[in-house]
Amino acid sequence: MTEIIPGKSPENMNTSSKAHARASARLGPSAKIMTFERPLPLDSGRKLERFELAYETYGTLDAARANAVLVCHALTGDQYAANDHPITGKAGWWATMIGPGKPIDTNRFFVICANIIGGCMGSTGPSSLNPETGRVYGLDFPVITIADMVRAQVRLLDRLGIERVFMVAGGSMGGMQVLDFVAKYPDRAFCALPIATTARHSPQNIAFHEVGRQAVMADPDWCGGRYIEAGKVPRKGLAVARMAAHITYLSETALHNKFGRNLQDREDVTFGFDADFQVESYLRYQGYGFVDRFDANSYLYITRAMDYFDLPAEFGGKLANAFLNTRTRFCVVSFTSDWLYPTRESRQIVKALNAVAADVSFVEIETDKGHDAFLLEVPELFATVRGFVNAMAARCGLPGEGEG
Amino acid sequence: MTEIIPGKSPENMNTSSKAHARASARLGPSAKIMTFERPLPLDSGRKLERFELAYETYGTLDAARANAVLVCHALTGDQYAANDHPITGKAGWWATMIGPGKPIDTNRFFVICANIIGGCMGSTGPSSLNPETGRVYGLDFPVITIADMVRAQVRLLDRLGIERVFMVAGGSMGGMQVLDFVAKYPDRAFCALPIATTARHSPQNIAFHEVGRQAVMADPDWCGGRYIEAGKVPRKGLAVARMAAHITYLSETALHNKFGRNLQDREDVTFGFDADFQVESYLRYQGYGFVDRFDANSYLYITRAMDYFDLPAEFGGKLANAFLNTRTRFCVVSFTSDWLYPTRESRQIVKALNAVAADVSFVEIETDKGHDAFLLEVPELFATVRGFVNAMAARCGLPGEGEG
Repeated sequence: MTEIIPGKSPENMNTSSKAHARASARLGPSAKIMTFERPLPLDSGRKLERFELAYETYGTLDAARANAVLVCHALTGDQYAANDHPITGKAGWWATMIGPGKPIDTNRFFVICANIIGGCMGSTGPSSLNPETGRVYGLDFPVITIADMVRAQVRLLDRLGIERVFMVAGGSMGGMQVLDFVAKYPDRAFCALPIATTARHSPQNIAFHEVGRQAVMADPDWCGGRYIEAGKVPRKGLAVARMAAHITYLSETALHNKFGRNLQDREDVTFGFDADFQVESYLRYQGYGFVDRFDANSYLYITRAMDYFDLPAEFGGKLANAFLNTRTRFCVVSFTSDWLYPTRESRQIVKALNAVAADVSFVEIETDKGHDAFLLEVPELFATVRGFVNAMAARCGLPGEGEG
Repeated sequence: MTEIIPGKSPENMNTSSKAHARASARLGPSAKIMTFERPLPLDSGRKLERFELAYETYGTLDAARANAVLVCHALTGDQYAANDHPITGKAGWWATMIGPGKPIDTNRFFVICANIIGGCMGSTGPSSLNPETGRVYGLDFPVITIADMVRAQVRLLDRLGIERVFMVAGGSMGGMQVLDFVAKYPDRAFCALPIATTARHSPQNIAFHEVGRQAVMADPDWCGGRYIEAGKVPRKGLAVARMAAHITYLSETALHNKFGRNLQDREDVTFGFDADFQVESYLRYQGYGFVDRFDANSYLYITRAMDYFDLPAEFGGKLANAFLNTRTRFCVVSFTSDWLYPTRESRQIVKALNAVAADVSFVEIETDKGHDAFLLEVPELFATVRGFVNAMAARCGLPGEGEG
């Protein structure tokens, strides 16, 4: 394991490795990075000769190595699930869910959250150095899949000596990883919690991703993917991509309740192209804030991985085949107002699990918060996760609440 | 009335007027242009000192000038409702609806469709010459509203000597114009047909428009709005805007049925960023095709006008007030799978009309074609329009079917 030493500055560092070190230095004091020298085979047929995973852990691994929870992050998430984010300074994306006494209780569980490969928070991705060329990968980085992300994380579990996790959990793209993990490694999770996700990315979602990618690639500062070496950032393109995507994370009702047609710091419309409406101001803030913490090429690669996700296709066209003989216990969660991964897609997962007589519970949570509900203060979600975790812990022989 | 003379080329034409003539020359042989020398007051408080409306007509105005139908076009539509489009060569956007023997029967009715002000098919808009400066307007063009568009069209009716139209009809933004027309000019339409529209643009729709505008303005070839003089076209930005918008015009079911996850001319995914999926290829085609026939600044101005549309706000916060004492007969139409202007927004119009005891029928048409259904082959829509038109013609004393 290579610990990051913030601020290290070798003398003979070239531009590219400076960029890499800069990326690493962003990770903050809790950062852990695992380096893997054995090649990672990829679904594309290519391989990563060498790769790193940056990850965070919360809680303590028990002596039996039986209390691990693998948390998988979403498209624009990262390993800062519970720790403050080193760039934005904001609380981790699941800080409400993970912590002492929280539904995923770090007094009892050892939580691991790794930045996916293809990401930009320290794991190997398109902004990393390509060892074959000594240059930043850019578009030379191989196109990856959800399965590739999972394969890398399984390597991390191997290295940490964790044969079976107590739970694998995640929302959105994190949920895709949960499904792939359970399908491909049926003995390695006692229970699984896929939230607001799908087993097969829909054409509408592919379409929204394509718009985002086109927005990034339309930005001349993208430089054909070589913007790091050119000392540029395709800020505008990435911001537009984020703005378009962000709309899909909310429900129409949420937009109504949150903003309506309210004006931003003005009494009347200006008859111009400023952000007259609060919703415009909010989108611009979301778009341009995102650019500071995310890499444009990572956005291309990760959206592509999601587009390619089609678990039934990998199992002869039948999702149930993905879960044949599974012994994992499932809790599938969806949200009524999520139009990106609507409840019917969760129901397809549940139906497939029922078809193989798997142990599955399904909760559709009534909320107007849209897809983003998995990240937000939704009491019924916390209650659902807490209930599932505690019931599973009891069945697994792990400590119950307050016993950690 | 100034008839366009295709190919005219005055000797002392400067760059800007060349651009203007080029725009005019695009209009084709059926083009009519009306020039208005009396200033048009605008909601912004500014005015257009002089403006032109390019329009097409279909059928013949009767002696009593009582058989006119004003058809209002949508955001990316134009006056080529029934005639072939001079640039794309494609059939008019409502060629299925308007024509001899069609639901809006040109054997009996005189159909007028004008390019809105702010548009780019010959009516005065941001790509027109600013008479004050002699330069193309660009962002010096005043921000316009739906009411301004309607005000200009009422001037056209005045000039054509049409005191009252038999019907005012339109879908989407065309429907907004219908509502505004009836509210502001209560004696000038015998009946009204607003389709797939709303009385107040929603925050979600404002958000999507804002993304489109940001995409256009992010393109360096937009040149701060002065791209015509710079000899450039913000193709990529406008294409991205169109792609994002286009997704919203379709339903998820339509995308499923039309494309699913089918691949485009390939057996397997390419592990790259080409358009692997048919839906991606389709979007790119829609995006880049649009650029050839539409002006980027017009896109900014027209989306802004839609965002500003809030008819209740203009009538003391109560939509019903917009229709007090109306004598116009309404047929309000919505589509089950339209998530851009969902049925509940049409119901709000109907409720407001009911509140003032207006003559209104309401049809929600079951279709999976999404918002675009108003432009597509939806037999129930044709039957609805035909039935409404014929019933209204009978009440108005106009010829019935086959009597034209």
